[in-house]
Amino acid sequence: MANPLNDLSRLCIHTITTKPWSLDQCIDNYTAAGIPAITVWRDVLQKHGVKESARLIRESGLRVTSLCRGGFFPGATAEDRNKSLDDNRRAIEEAAEIGAPLVVLVCGAVPGQPLEKSRDQITDGIGALLDEAEAANVKLAIEPLHPMYADDRSAINTMKQANDVAERLSHSHVGVAVDVYHLWWDEALESEIARCGENGNLLAFHVCDWHTPTRHLLTDRELMGRGCINIKEIRRWVEQAGFTGDIEVEIFSEEYWALDQNEWLKQLTEAYLNHV
Amino acid sequence: MANPLNDLSRLCIHTITTKPWSLDQCIDNYTAAGIPAITVWRDVLQKHGVKESARLIRESGLRVTSLCRGGFFPGATAEDRNKSLDDNRRAIEEAAEIGAPLVVLVCGAVPGQPLEKSRDQITDGIGALLDEAEAANVKLAIEPLHPMYADDRSAINTMKQANDVAERLSHSHVGVAVDVYHLWWDEALESEIARCGENGNLLAFHVCDWHTPTRHLLTDRELMGRGCINIKEIRRWVEQAGFTGDIEVEIFSEEYWALDQNEWLKQLTEAYLNHV
Repeated sequence: MANPLNDLSRLCIHTITTKPWSLDQCIDNYTAAGIPAITVWRDVLQKHGVKESARLIRESGLRVTSLCRGGFFPGATAEDRNKSLDDNRRAIEEAAEIGAPLVVLVCGAVPGQPLEKSRDQITDGIGALLDEAEAANVKLAIEPLHPMYADDRSAINTMKQANDVAERLSHSHVGVAVDVYHLWWDEALESEIARCGENGNLLAFHVCDWHTPTRHLLTDRELMGRGCINIKEIRRWVEQAGFTGDIEVEIFSEEYWALDQNEWLKQLTEAYLNHV
Repeated sequence: MANPLNDLSRLCIHTITTKPWSLDQCIDNYTAAGIPAITVWRDVLQKHGVKESARLIRESGLRVTSLCRGGFFPGATAEDRNKSLDDNRRAIEEAAEIGAPLVVLVCGAVPGQPLEKSRDQITDGIGALLDEAEAANVKLAIEPLHPMYADDRSAINTMKQANDVAERLSHSHVGVAVDVYHLWWDEALESEIARCGENGNLLAFHVCDWHTPTRHLLTDRELMGRGCINIKEIRRWVEQAGFTGDIEVEIFSEEYWALDQNEWLKQLTEAYLNHV
């Protein structure tokens, strides 16, 4: 097990975790709750626009951990793939503007296209962005997704595959985001996290838990401590691999979004201190 | 790609695929449709009892491919694990009685218990049954389940893990069942199928397809050809590994169970000839 977390100093909340709130509500309520860091989902930038959002975040004093998300590189046609690159360029610009050092990548997949081909397109797509990412001082974090999303969301489904792509690109501005929800089941997880750290590629750490029975593939994540994931053990592996950054709580849940979101935030901070 | 299937001679239907039908209805309608083989789920044995069910199947001339299912070996207490062993002993007896050469194992998992511990309990559980399985001339087939079932249904989630357990037990009456639904996403699948064949452990082959978007974790499987799984390629790997047995169609689907089941059976046989 990892050493206990005694305070909220490394806690980051993803805006999607409190989906009913707009960006200004997230900022007000996170700061009031003593949460020091925020990961911004791009949908919440729309209300105020990127520039004004950046100002609101800057003035709040919140640390921006990352921008979610870029990715979706594979496509059946070159036109599709170029469209995706343009969207990723905008994500890099938005990240730079709001002060996010990182864009998280949900890498994409095309149903029926061989996963190996999608992984090649992902590698090419990220590779095409690295100069711009470096110029903007924004890193790109490949997030392996659970194999249940291999049909249309990501052809990168294990830490090994994320490490393979990151090492193939071998660049200061590409790395990997570890999310316990996607990876906990994998017997190679500990060794692949160590490999990721050795190569200097471990850029982010996301937590939540697995609900039994899972009622929806996308929006039934569980609060830490209420599911079956060995979160503390995985945190230990991540920290042994050299990671000292923010611990990001990313929970999609119709059930919890229906709660009073301040009550939900209280449950989140308690669960963070006790079960991460 | 594999060589085309030109007739139904290797087609086996799982009774759960036509869930609205009782065993006698399955028997009547499968034989009328020219389907030569059946995999019997244990629930359909209840209507007539095992002995009478065995007589009905024998008289129908249908080949019994396997009995579904045994397993669920892990448990928090020795009492739980012994109960599970007793249930597996009954499954072996039922298989012998209905002429099934094989019991398929959904190996089990206990939410929150380390998966490695569950895999040890699975290995111990299967090991404890092998003498009885051999005496009954019934083989036990470890079916790796998709990682989305690692919480409470199986701690065996890849071909590699199934091969590991089968090789650790190294016995004439244990092997592995390959189901494309659970395994298609795994980059090690081709090499692990080859390994399974080399060790004489490839006992069964199940097909269906993956529905995008999947609306339910258990009961939204797709008909072959309507999803994203590379079924023909996986069949080629399985046959290159020496497998020549029945090809079993196992589809849980609320959508298709709502159809007229004879119409559904027609779709199944067409999809089998065109997309497997």
